[in-house]
Amino acid sequence: MKLYDCQMAPNPRRVRIFIAEKGLPLPKVEVSILDGDNLKPEFLRINPRGLLPVLELDDGTVLDETVAICRYLEETHPEPNLMGATPLERATIESWQRHMEFDGLQAVSEVVRNSIPVFSSRGLAGTTQVPAIPALVERGTASMARFFTRIEQRLHETEFVAGNRFTIADITALCVIDTAQNFVKMPIPASNTSTQRWYAAVSSRPSAKA
Amino acid sequence: MKLYDCQMAPNPRRVRIFIAEKGLPLPKVEVSILDGDNLKPEFLRINPRGLLPVLELDDGTVLDETVAICRYLEETHPEPNLMGATPLERATIESWQRHMEFDGLQAVSEVVRNSIPVFSSRGLAGTTQVPAIPALVERGTASMARFFTRIEQRLHETEFVAGNRFTIADITALCVIDTAQNFVKMPIPASNTSTQRWYAAVSSRPSAKA
Repeated sequence: MKLYDCQMAPNPRRVRIFIAEKGLPLPKVEVSILDGDNLKPEFLRINPRGLLPVLELDDGTVLDETVAICRYLEETHPEPNLMGATPLERATIESWQRHMEFDGLQAVSEVVRNSIPVFSSRGLAGTTQVPAIPALVERGTASMARFFTRIEQRLHETEFVAGNRFTIADITALCVIDTAQNFVKMPIPASNTSTQRWYAAVSSRPSAKA
Repeated sequence: MKLYDCQMAPNPRRVRIFIAEKGLPLPKVEVSILDGDNLKPEFLRINPRGLLPVLELDDGTVLDETVAICRYLEETHPEPNLMGATPLERATIESWQRHMEFDGLQAVSEVVRNSIPVFSSRGLAGTTQVPAIPALVERGTASMARFFTRIEQRLHETEFVAGNRFTIADITALCVIDTAQNFVKMPIPASNTSTQRWYAAVSSRPSAKA
């Protein structure tokens, strides 16, 4: 297997953390989104959508979607479990994972894609040429404020995002928060002490360096 | 089990079609999004996000997310299989399912939420009061044109969206296309003959009436 990766982007990092938690050695090929290498013909031959990450299996089969890649790795390398051990636990973790995507990752992506100059004609990820929409910076910023409120309420009640143990939902949330802090200077509010407690815990796991 | 449902909305319909394919009898409670019943206290007690569908299990456990609900039903009622029978098939179907969401459902939702007057202060689903952004109608319309091109290319090569059989990816795609046609008058382009062939087949399944 081989992972087409991009160090600075949240979706490839989600897979890198997932792989690190599983303890899998996996060769990586760096493709720079900032330099637009994901939009060049040699990468578009691998993924015509121009999106990262991509997992290429040994027989050449390509998986081109973050959570689908994680699910494949979860099922082929079940330990440690990151996506649930029973039907109800799997559904609960999937709900939280998707809430972190829709509440958080989409919100911060709206801010990043519509405010950072390198993306001024790349308002949507991939090959599409879409102009930035300034009103989405305001909408995304407000959505991120709601995300911070919701995750604080959740983490006041539970140790991790999906319950009492680390799962793929924490990986998505961590990548949302680091993107918000590092790219558009939206840190966790200082008064959100449950989120700060959780962030300190998940950030200190060895996988967070991935 | 009990499904909190909304006849006119695409996400509840995805679950209704899924349930119909499984042949499950499942009591449904209608909650009108157009009338804002999803934002009233009695529904917010069930799902504080104000989103539909919601599956309530017999013990009161609530699953509040479309695909998580489908996965729970898939694993507890495995036949007919709609989400894959092997790790690679499950990952492939999940990739296509998510492409239908990100390429299609998000695009048509951008157009619907930002152009239909009833949603003028509900630009995002759920309890959030967000003003419509007119530029998103243009962006969403262009994204839908790309969606139609991509699904035509795919269905020129394969009988169904994720391969040679009907899966959850077809359910998502069908709900995208019916929403586009019925809400914002964006039918499948007449020249997209592979998509027309697929649409005729999936629309004539008894589950499509769900």
